[in-house]
Amino acid sequence: MDYRQVEGGREFVARMSHGEDWRAQIEAFAAEQGVDAAFFYGLGAVQDAELYFYDQDEQEYYPEPFDEPFEVASCVGNVSILDGELFAHAHVTLSREDGSTVAGHLNTATTFAGELYVREFDATLEREHDPVTDLDLWPL
Amino acid sequence: MDYRQVEGGREFVARMSHGEDWRAQIEAFAAEQGVDAAFFYGLGAVQDAELYFYDQDEQEYYPEPFDEPFEVASCVGNVSILDGELFAHAHVTLSREDGSTVAGHLNTATTFAGELYVREFDATLEREHDPVTDLDLWPL
Amino acid sequence: MDYRQVEGGREFVARMSHGEDWRAQIEAFAAEQGVDAAFFYGLGAVQDAELYFYDQDEQEYYPEPFDEPFEVASCVGNVSILDGELFAHAHVTLSREDGSTVAGHLNTATTFAGELYVREFDATLEREHDPVTDLDLWPL
Repeated sequence: MDYRQVEGGREFVARMSHGEDWRAQIEAFAAEQGVDAAFFYGLGAVQDAELYFYDQDEQEYYPEPFDEPFEVASCVGNVSILDGELFAHAHVTLSREDGSTVAGHLNTATTFAGELYVREFDATLEREHDPVTDLDLWPL
Repeated sequence: MDYRQVEGGREFVARMSHGEDWRAQIEAFAAEQGVDAAFFYGLGAVQDAELYFYDQDEQEYYPEPFDEPFEVASCVGNVSILDGELFAHAHVTLSREDGSTVAGHLNTATTFAGELYVREFDATLEREHDPVTDLDLWPL
Repeated sequence: MDYRQVEGGREFVARMSHGEDWRAQIEAFAAEQGVDAAFFYGLGAVQDAELYFYDQDEQEYYPEPFDEPFEVASCVGNVSILDGELFAHAHVTLSREDGSTVAGHLNTATTFAGELYVREFDATLEREHDPVTDLDLWPL
């Protein structure tokens, strides 16, 4: 495991905006506040979602759109730099009215409501292409 | 996204009490310690659970009781003020012995065991009725 | 609910090592850095997984192996002392390419990729056998 000790920066409590994209508003907030490195977690509900599933053999992402409302049972992620831009990496577990679930890497989702805790770090986390996984990971 | 920078307060590690309601004991702890605003996450197991599913069109909560034991794969939530009372808002992902899951907004659950990390904020978070979603949300 | 106020210690951001066991590398990191007490959460992907399901009536763990790749939609856990050794207790929600999920107590999993936030506490958390649940829990 590669790791880095980080100094804690600011902490934020957020209320996600209804009708806006879940990840895009995290990235807009990060840009507005100059948050270059952070972890976050939260909960809420979305009106739809597109998840990305990564095929570990093919090393390709496949989009899987779900055009239905969900609770966000959990959203776990972080903010760092990818290709010079702020990038919010988030995984979610979503649930339907009968409690059944879908989960994975979140691309887009129209927010119904959401509550987030963001822990900033006084650090720079920059993603680089990793040849083993073909993912963009942090060299720590 | 509406957000507020918060000052971190106390941090707590908790062991949930066997046989007691999951959310009620978080609220009792918050009252005992004067924790008005916090985020928490944790894991554990419950003997049963009642989830609430929110119908985004009808804007109504529907209870869905599950009379079976579950692992708590994740519990994500926060403490704030609702109608003048401390309110623990929690979403959970629950799993059965075969690994199958149900997830959503937790109302009640009889704790089997549980471990929680609570991050208090030196802030006041008070929920108000939001006409767009018909939910009680924070004006940040 | 039993609880203890803890003083926050160091914070770490980690990139999990490809091909290594998920929990074992958390324990190796904790040993290397002298992290005796911590909570963590994160996300990632694994190449396989063995979950443990606890039968609350029989009070026995049953292993459930899954020989397939998963996204780690969430990983929530902590580090404490069990039988004099550092022990990483982790629950995960895992998802397949179609978004379907399995979740529970993680025993082993071969890491594909993973990102973790670790919050250390200046405290000692030591597990002891609990006769009611037959689990090893913290006396707080």
